[in-house]
Amino acid sequence: MSTPSAAQSAAQPAAKSAAQPARRGPYAKSRQRRESIVAAAYAVFAAHGYRGGSLQDVADKVGMSQTSLLHYFPSKRDLLLAVLHQRDTITQDGTPRDPEQTLADAVVRQARFNETVPGVIELYTVLCAESVTDNHPGLEYFTERYERLRRSYLRAFTALADEGRLRPGVDPGRAAASLIALWDGIQTQWLMAPERIDMAGCLRDYLDLVVLPA
Amino acid sequence: MSTPSAAQSAAQPAAKSAAQPARRGPYAKSRQRRESIVAAAYAVFAAHGYRGGSLQDVADKVGMSQTSLLHYFPSKRDLLLAVLHQRDTITQDGTPRDPEQTLADAVVRQARFNETVPGVIELYTVLCAESVTDNHPGLEYFTERYERLRRSYLRAFTALADEGRLRPGVDPGRAAASLIALWDGIQTQWLMAPERIDMAGCLRDYLDLVVLPA
Repeated sequence: MSTPSAAQSAAQPAAKSAAQPARRGPYAKSRQRRESIVAAAYAVFAAHGYRGGSLQDVADKVGMSQTSLLHYFPSKRDLLLAVLHQRDTITQDGTPRDPEQTLADAVVRQARFNETVPGVIELYTVLCAESVTDNHPGLEYFTERYERLRRSYLRAFTALADEGRLRPGVDPGRAAASLIALWDGIQTQWLMAPERIDMAGCLRDYLDLVVLPA
Repeated sequence: MSTPSAAQSAAQPAAKSAAQPARRGPYAKSRQRRESIVAAAYAVFAAHGYRGGSLQDVADKVGMSQTSLLHYFPSKRDLLLAVLHQRDTITQDGTPRDPEQTLADAVVRQARFNETVPGVIELYTVLCAESVTDNHPGLEYFTERYERLRRSYLRAFTALADEGRLRPGVDPGRAAASLIALWDGIQTQWLMAPERIDMAGCLRDYLDLVVLPA
């Protein structure tokens, strides 16, 4: 699933800088440089994974030497973390923004949005799975992200249970983990056969099974 | 999900050779060599991914030169395919073997078995996600595997629908894709937090929602 929690939205340089008034001079140039490097790294890691994509590939893409690139991001690891935060600025988490919106509507809307950004989904899918390999710098990011998302959906399902709207027998904690799991897994199938996989339909079906009508 | 279809069980050299009487001489030695290379490659690809793991890592692990290794497997791609087939000999697909066994029991039993082989789950998770990256040699394997699994579970859910045992409103095709997706996704969460994720419980919950009691 390509859906960070809303709690993650702090400390996102690209989004923040976009909201600031335009500046001139060396600071603005440096910021632009950083943004182009992150965009290039994003594409390289999505296409080859973190281990498969090299700093040289990123430097080539942005027309810079590797030494200059390392001036902006001292290590490949720093670049990966910048790319993961950049991803967070693009996607939302599928929890309702508006009190009138149902959980299912929020999830389905997010899933439909994700179909418009396949590069983001690919990056997320590849880096998340790769992060379980030995000493991968993304492991902490993804582990924390899952914990945060499980807590967020646990709250949503517990609130529904309190209203008597969780189907009897459904465990809110396992439902939270299952919704996230279904979302991740259906994105992988969709990347391989987008014309055949109805991501939003599968997510809505699941929530229709778990949540009783109001 | 680390669960190839039963239809895949053809052409699996390691399993076949294990069933054959022991042989001596150059043939047996060559077979042993191939088996140790595949085992080493398995560990390397699970720990670093396909792109992150090198032929030199595999050669080092098995105490052989890269040139000798290439005599057994002419390319890294051939080695990857041998590893994927080796994985197929270890896992089953979670569809009932015994006509008395329910789909939920078969899936849960398979999920519990998978907990005993975390290296297999890691290999599957990493290579499957990595296969969507540019020109990855595993893409065809995983794409076909998903198609075969979706057909297999579609048949199972359609048979249940014919018996009146699918919950009204459940679409057998989306349920097939969703069961596979949930299984894949919950394995990823389990790899990161095995003590906190109840893989078998999540799968049983889903099937309890979708399939009505007999």
